Amino acid sequence: MDNFVFDNATKIYFGKDQIKKLPGLLTPFGKNVLLVYGGGSIKRTGLYETIQTLLSDFNIIECEGVEPNPHHTTVQRGADLCKQHHIDVILAVGGGSVIDAAKVMGAGAHYDGPIWDLVVDASKIQDVTPLVTVLTLSGTGSEMNRGSVITNTQLNIKKGTGGQNSLPFASIIDPTYMMTLPANQTAAGAIDAFSHAIENYFKADNDTFMQDAISESVMKAVIKYAPIALKEPTNYQARANLAWASTLALNGLTGVGKPGPWAVHAIEHELSAYYDLTHGLGLGILIPVWLGFILEDEMMPIFVRYGVNVWGIDSSKDDSTIAYESIDRTIEFFKSLNAPLTLREVNIDSTHFEVMAKSAVALGRLTQHLFPLDENDVMMILNQCL
Amino acid sequence: MDNFVFDNATKIYFGKDQIKKLPGLLTPFGKNVLLVYGGGSIKRTGLYETIQTLLSDFNIIECEGVEPNPHHTTVQRGADLCKQHHIDVILAVGGGSVIDAAKVMGAGAHYDGPIWDLVVDASKIQDVTPLVTVLTLSGTGSEMNRGSVITNTQLNIKKGTGGQNSLPFASIIDPTYMMTLPANQTAAGAIDAFSHAIENYFKADNDTFMQDAISESVMKAVIKYAPIALKEPTNYQARANLAWASTLALNGLTGVGKPGPWAVHAIEHELSAYYDLTHGLGLGILIPVWLGFILEDEMMPIFVRYGVNVWGIDSSKDDSTIAYESIDRTIEFFKSLNAPLTLREVNIDSTHFEVMAKSAVALGRLTQHLFPLDENDVMMILNQCL
Repeated sequence: MDNFVFDNATKIYFGKDQIKKLPGLLTPFGKNVLLVYGGGSIKRTGLYETIQTLLSDFNIIECEGVEPNPHHTTVQRGADLCKQHHIDVILAVGGGSVIDAAKVMGAGAHYDGPIWDLVVDASKIQDVTPLVTVLTLSGTGSEMNRGSVITNTQLNIKKGTGGQNSLPFASIIDPTYMMTLPANQTAAGAIDAFSHAIENYFKADNDTFMQDAISESVMKAVIKYAPIALKEPTNYQARANLAWASTLALNGLTGVGKPGPWAVHAIEHELSAYYDLTHGLGLGILIPVWLGFILEDEMMPIFVRYGVNVWGIDSSKDDSTIAYESIDRTIEFFKSLNAPLTLREVNIDSTHFEVMAKSAVALGRLTQHLFPLDENDVMMILNQCL
Repeated sequence: MDNFVFDNATKIYFGKDQIKKLPGLLTPFGKNVLLVYGGGSIKRTGLYETIQTLLSDFNIIECEGVEPNPHHTTVQRGADLCKQHHIDVILAVGGGSVIDAAKVMGAGAHYDGPIWDLVVDASKIQDVTPLVTVLTLSGTGSEMNRGSVITNTQLNIKKGTGGQNSLPFASIIDPTYMMTLPANQTAAGAIDAFSHAIENYFKADNDTFMQDAISESVMKAVIKYAPIALKEPTNYQARANLAWASTLALNGLTGVGKPGPWAVHAIEHELSAYYDLTHGLGLGILIPVWLGFILEDEMMPIFVRYGVNVWGIDSSKDDSTIAYESIDRTIEFFKSLNAPLTLREVNIDSTHFEVMAKSAVALGRLTQHLFPLDENDVMMILNQCL
């Protein structure tokens, strides 16, 4: 186990009706609230109305229309609103895109240059406007971490950023908000949570028992509860267990003490920088192909652990059988969620593969992974995804 | 899963040489430091000297001699020192007893009445002096939670307390500090961590997948690494994995969303209120007997999960066989750690059982457990432990 710092102060209010805590959470910061949300689904579900009622004593400025894979221009608009209206606290209501955008808006509120600077160079994120979130779609884990992924559609770059102060002050996670999600969003969120666990699981093999056990638990939770949530969208226990597993998948617990970068996310970010692709679905296409690509002798101990502990494959089988079976089981599982398994299904062809591969290796530091990937490797993976 | 709040801001600095961060962690609070420690083992190991050198720019007031099962009179002494010397920050260097005591000292520094008030009524804990800890013995989890257990030897009461502000600001966990522990302390710490997981695991059965999976992981980590740490005290990976599992066992993750009180701790607190018994060893005597006592039909699903997931017992066996086997395996494991298995071995007889049983039921709210215990039940458990 490598040395690490675990430092995560986000207060989580989990369960039904926790929204009632909202006024009390915002009050210490002030009256001027920037309400950040997406395409308006919160108006259809009634959550927007609930929040307006609860916050009738606050001055609410709205920043609507945060897109999936949020654009830096939208983040700039939010940062400008913060400055213009002397915003005291940001309230992000939505999924990972909305929360990611809100984090960088809050940093931009205290930065004089263009917002894209804060994505290119995370060290420029210093002071931030406090952030409270209300999660409506589990998966990204953004509600309890410092990270944001922002897209520059002019440059076709999708990149992660985040500062020491980027952690939400508090997040409300009410599983009932997820009961009205379309099936493909439930599936995408579930695969996203699964991907965070599997990226951390395969990125190093250095005696990190609890970290790996928690990753295995996240994957098993997704395997158990995602199919239930798809079949019975209003099943509270399924939504609750999916949500809490998603939060724990990326709040530090699965990654601390393990060195090295992730692999699949870097490649997926390239895909959704060029195409309007749902992040979780892109990951679901890439993961099985990537697993097949890295299935070499040096990775075998991790594959065997994955197969036996996550998929319950008989440990008396030989290692190679367990490894191949673990990949087959992963594919079958994503398929059972009705997730696409090829890039063709999401209308992506090989046009940009070369520049994507180059960028993924550079931005994702993929040559530093436990199983290093160069541009040719990424090209091969992308081509196999077609 | 019940509604819950997860709110744990303690910064963990984990690994070798993290002690170098100490001056930076204390500086923001001020120069006047109360150094709290136990019987002087930190002088033998050189840690005392290291800290004195690192903190040569600070004014250090010492509060030495915190006993195992810390006495309220010692806590009073520390609180008085805080007031007298205008202490800005408390530095607790030791195991759970030292950290537990330091938490209440910091609360006492801001309270005018006698310190025992803060144990009897936790709501009286309001402002506290900030606390930084350096952990030298893993097990209690006190380095990342709000709890303290304080003993009043005049009244023979050992009781838990803790306020919203009782969380350490930061804790340094360097597994190398645990390499010089006597074997019985390593064993006691391991059983203590195991006990926190098993108490949360058996206290409710309400669809809390991640919580229970983390409890199982803690128990499996202890089962894997405690024997290694006993055999090879300087094995870094064993010490590191034991330490991180111990911290995660009681920082909220295993208990959130699960209602009800614990059972074994309440009974053990009675034993060590009357006798100078190491907490972890008392738990090790009680757990197997308690498991046998609560092995009834309504608890069977939890026993089966425990047997299969923690001990790897073949799930095709019938439930009752799995359950009994899981208890046998637990006993064998504690035995393999050279932990005592009966109260006679630690020189405790039945003299105080009646009053202990009464007090455990009252203080521990044992009738509200998923498997309720009344005074007669506790008497039976204690008698079986003889």
